[in-house]
Amino acid sequence: MEKLHSLYFVLEMSGTFAFAISGATAARRRNLDLFGICAVAFVVACGGGIIRDLCIGVIPPAGLTNWQYLVVAISAAGLTVGFYSVVQRLKRPVLLFDAVGLSMFAVTGAQKALAYGYNAEVAILLGITTAVGGGVMRDILLTRVPFILEKEIYASAALLGSLIVVLGDHFNWGTGGWVAIIALTVSFTLRILALRYHWNLPTPGDDKTDADTHR
Amino acid sequence: MEKLHSLYFVLEMSGTFAFAISGATAARRRNLDLFGICAVAFVVACGGGIIRDLCIGVIPPAGLTNWQYLVVAISAAGLTVGFYSVVQRLKRPVLLFDAVGLSMFAVTGAQKALAYGYNAEVAILLGITTAVGGGVMRDILLTRVPFILEKEIYASAALLGSLIVVLGDHFNWGTGGWVAIIALTVSFTLRILALRYHWNLPTPGDDKTDADTHR
Amino acid sequence: MEKLHSLYFVLEMSGTFAFAISGATAARRRNLDLFGICAVAFVVACGGGIIRDLCIGVIPPAGLTNWQYLVVAISAAGLTVGFYSVVQRLKRPVLLFDAVGLSMFAVTGAQKALAYGYNAEVAILLGITTAVGGGVMRDILLTRVPFILEKEIYASAALLGSLIVVLGDHFNWGTGGWVAIIALTVSFTLRILALRYHWNLPTPGDDKTDADTHR
Repeated sequence: MEKLHSLYFVLEMSGTFAFAISGATAARRRNLDLFGICAVAFVVACGGGIIRDLCIGVIPPAGLTNWQYLVVAISAAGLTVGFYSVVQRLKRPVLLFDAVGLSMFAVTGAQKALAYGYNAEVAILLGITTAVGGGVMRDILLTRVPFILEKEIYASAALLGSLIVVLGDHFNWGTGGWVAIIALTVSFTLRILALRYHWNLPTPGDDKTDADTHR
Repeated sequence: MEKLHSLYFVLEMSGTFAFAISGATAARRRNLDLFGICAVAFVVACGGGIIRDLCIGVIPPAGLTNWQYLVVAISAAGLTVGFYSVVQRLKRPVLLFDAVGLSMFAVTGAQKALAYGYNAEVAILLGITTAVGGGVMRDILLTRVPFILEKEIYASAALLGSLIVVLGDHFNWGTGGWVAIIALTVSFTLRILALRYHWNLPTPGDDKTDADTHR
Repeated sequence: MEKLHSLYFVLEMSGTFAFAISGATAARRRNLDLFGICAVAFVVACGGGIIRDLCIGVIPPAGLTNWQYLVVAISAAGLTVGFYSVVQRLKRPVLLFDAVGLSMFAVTGAQKALAYGYNAEVAILLGITTAVGGGVMRDILLTRVPFILEKEIYASAALLGSLIVVLGDHFNWGTGGWVAIIALTVSFTLRILALRYHWNLPTPGDDKTDADTHR
């Protein structure tokens, strides 16, 4: 169990790091200043978890009280600023870590909601929120339509991860630890496969039949 | 009283449905994928209520715990995707239901804040927030200036509905039921008349006298 | 102590007023209607404090319960609408009051978090949030990249103010009153100097070396 917690911690920090890198990179591209880059990095890394904690009554939200998140986010921002060309070449590993973060946050988000005694719907909705909330906030701050609402299976991978956690809890599938590892693996694999093979959800608005109705 | 509650439930679900349709339609036009369409539909339908619940300490927010909202929102999204041409022809009934939702959410939002013991100001501000919050979040997600801040009497109708509830509570006008029905009717009527006759609030920035100062 | 509280109140209301003016002016330029102008003014004035209060569990947030904030914000909006040319000529005093609000909100935000028993990190993060949250929300509503993430030392002045409060609390520097006044003065001075001499934080994205990687 001890080992599982250490593993959790490493995975969560990897995810936080990757999320912060994605925020810092996007902020740098939009010419934000040093503070702006750090702020966006932190928001991407912790924004989803903060919304989850507000919704389940964890006051103050963990993202604000645990210095580890802040340190990891600022380090990622510093790295992005100081070694931008390196970070750019790291695009692949960053996408990999991002997938780690996505599945990790979906699983821990759902688990936390269940641990506080809330129902399956809350757990699934907040699992997704934890996983994608930070990315949505990044895109809002940089005034673009949230990426995750447009492209590739992203939020759906988070949904699947949260769903497995909730099902495992409901049907008492063995100990929580195994269910979480399965949820993580499935969610992560789906995301990586979607990236590799460019799987997308259907975009109904693309039908030619109603092209004239677009604005 | 039983009947009143059933009526309430029907009105609230009609409003939720109309709000979700407006979200799904807007999301489809911006070419979001299936998940994005469902997400925006849900946010429009439940976003305002979730902010209200966070502000009055209802944890977790009702929009996350009651499966009815989620089912109605996803159904509306499904309908928009599957029968888009039908939904487009339903523009008038959707505007009608939207007005129902607007006045309904303004009234129930203000009532809920009062029921939790908060003052008139909180009730009015959160009544408006419940009614227009989802629409504002839709426009933020789709990166456009919130519609309701620009055009036609919309938020003002919500303000009026919340105000009547608060006045009724303060002056003990009969039982809560009647006051709510009057508030609903007045707010709904104002919105429908504004739609019908294109009533707008003044837009001070339109004065020619300072046209040169616009950016 | 009585006097200090009166001073606090005057400073806080000056800040609220300046923030509301900045919101109303920006909203008017974007041709929002009367309700939109009032709404943006209120959001800029109270948005940061509302987020802070949600994060530390002050339910309902002070910005919703204290009528003073609402009255000041609506008055500022009314003034901006009625006497726009006057308000425009007041650009300098408004920037001055805005600096007052910035440092004031940073200091009181950090103090409030400490008073509720939370740690230094929470106090600093929420001090900054209180000071800049409203402005960020204004820019999100008007769909532009938040000004404060791009230009001049703004959030950094808030960070400095919150930091001094936290240090003073940690090392027991005399009574809270003096520390707050020093924090206020330093934060305010930094902001004014940054305005006067156009001090900016570095914008790493501006390097020519990676110009080709910009989107």
